[in-house]
Amino acid sequence: MTKKVVLIIEYDGSAYKGWQAQKYDVPSVQENLEKALSVIANHKVSVVCAGRTDSGVHASAQVVHFETEVERSERSWTLGVNTHLPSDISVVAARYVDEAFHARFSALSRRYRYVIYQSALRPALLGKGLTWTYKTLDVEAMKEAARCFLGTHDFSSFRAVGCQAHTPIRTILNFSVQQLGQYIVLDVRANAFLHHMIRNFAGVLMTIGAGEQPVSWAKQVLAAKDRTKGGITAPPTGLYFVDAEYPEHFNLPQRPLGPHFLPYVEEPDYALSR
Amino acid sequence: MTKKVVLIIEYDGSAYKGWQAQKYDVPSVQENLEKALSVIANHKVSVVCAGRTDSGVHASAQVVHFETEVERSERSWTLGVNTHLPSDISVVAARYVDEAFHARFSALSRRYRYVIYQSALRPALLGKGLTWTYKTLDVEAMKEAARCFLGTHDFSSFRAVGCQAHTPIRTILNFSVQQLGQYIVLDVRANAFLHHMIRNFAGVLMTIGAGEQPVSWAKQVLAAKDRTKGGITAPPTGLYFVDAEYPEHFNLPQRPLGPHFLPYVEEPDYALSR
Repeated sequence: MTKKVVLIIEYDGSAYKGWQAQKYDVPSVQENLEKALSVIANHKVSVVCAGRTDSGVHASAQVVHFETEVERSERSWTLGVNTHLPSDISVVAARYVDEAFHARFSALSRRYRYVIYQSALRPALLGKGLTWTYKTLDVEAMKEAARCFLGTHDFSSFRAVGCQAHTPIRTILNFSVQQLGQYIVLDVRANAFLHHMIRNFAGVLMTIGAGEQPVSWAKQVLAAKDRTKGGITAPPTGLYFVDAEYPEHFNLPQRPLGPHFLPYVEEPDYALSR
Repeated sequence: MTKKVVLIIEYDGSAYKGWQAQKYDVPSVQENLEKALSVIANHKVSVVCAGRTDSGVHASAQVVHFETEVERSERSWTLGVNTHLPSDISVVAARYVDEAFHARFSALSRRYRYVIYQSALRPALLGKGLTWTYKTLDVEAMKEAARCFLGTHDFSSFRAVGCQAHTPIRTILNFSVQQLGQYIVLDVRANAFLHHMIRNFAGVLMTIGAGEQPVSWAKQVLAAKDRTKGGITAPPTGLYFVDAEYPEHFNLPQRPLGPHFLPYVEEPDYALSR
């Protein structure tokens, strides 16, 4: 009998050309995971994820599902699979799940964190896990600017040219900008995201934070519905996929929000009531 | 006229055979730094550090000095040098210093942090920047055990076989064991350290924390003055050189204690009054 398994995956995306490789000769997170699962399952395994991440982007809690014919303990799908994964990819939870579950289509929302490191000189520690800026950013200005993104909008100005989504309409459910020592963390939850959307938010907010554009510019960019008005796409290094939300009855494993070096919990600055 | 410069260096030691290479065909942090400095100085530069770190060990604030005949701005010794360093090594501060200063011999104390990550499954993020344990550690037992290390002792039981120090006597000035979410951080300051000393402290404390030895075992190991009584040497991955202390009149650059993903400040559990 076919069974469905859900996994929570943590990965450092620095060495990968994204979740899914565009070409066959470059390593992807998906390919490594499918190979490791296939060893444990003893048959070819294909996985589906909640949100495909780009080259160099990380995840503290990517959600994937796969189907299998074999009987294995949940321990085999975690500890067992991890022995066949490289050190920068890890299964951090596994559970058998109702066959109606689909990592992509059942997801109600996705959540990302974007971690900016502010210092005069570049960091060497976590160098590929942060977005460094030598500029002093005005966090209050960034917070104020972010407010206009909340709710349902046409986000064409924040959408990569190659984005294949059917519509540029998305709903931002939470948006926060927090300063934590030398870190500035953007935390964004939406029903779904367009290609490069968060990195384009980060680009606009960092420009405003640096005082190179006024707070009102965020609203102008949004209203323009034109990517060419949106300024730079911030680097992938600071971006983490941190959560996907599903209907409660699927009973997914719950974990503290990551990445694990950011254990702070704060209420979002702006949230839609639901 | 010869001038002396002091630098604060941050590095991710994962890719290096330590601060100083044992062989000429493997990369070291020192070699990379000397090469970069030599480009800026336009002459061969040799550096001296506060504490040589082993293969895979990191630093948030290694202190080094060097001598140069040329006139360069402090900005050249930071931004300029950084453009010639790999991304996992960075100069984070530079200052001209009195010619009497010596990074090794002027140091009054050195300080390290050892970062343990406690979780059932191994982490993928910061995988080479933490020491992972799947065991649940009793932090109160570790704190209590650590108390006996404070003060001046013969630390032969915590000294690597190949250690070249003249004496096994060292003075531990501070020792703390803090739990921060899934992290357990050992923070140790001493006049100087023996080879593998902190990793051997970590090995003993993790064994006690796991309940495999009683709290009193730490004292027994210390009293034995015999490395073979000391148990395992914990891995280098979680170890960070975080500070060296110098007489105030040298006026070294001050920075918050690292690594930067641990911005917490707490008083040490145990400290010698000085």
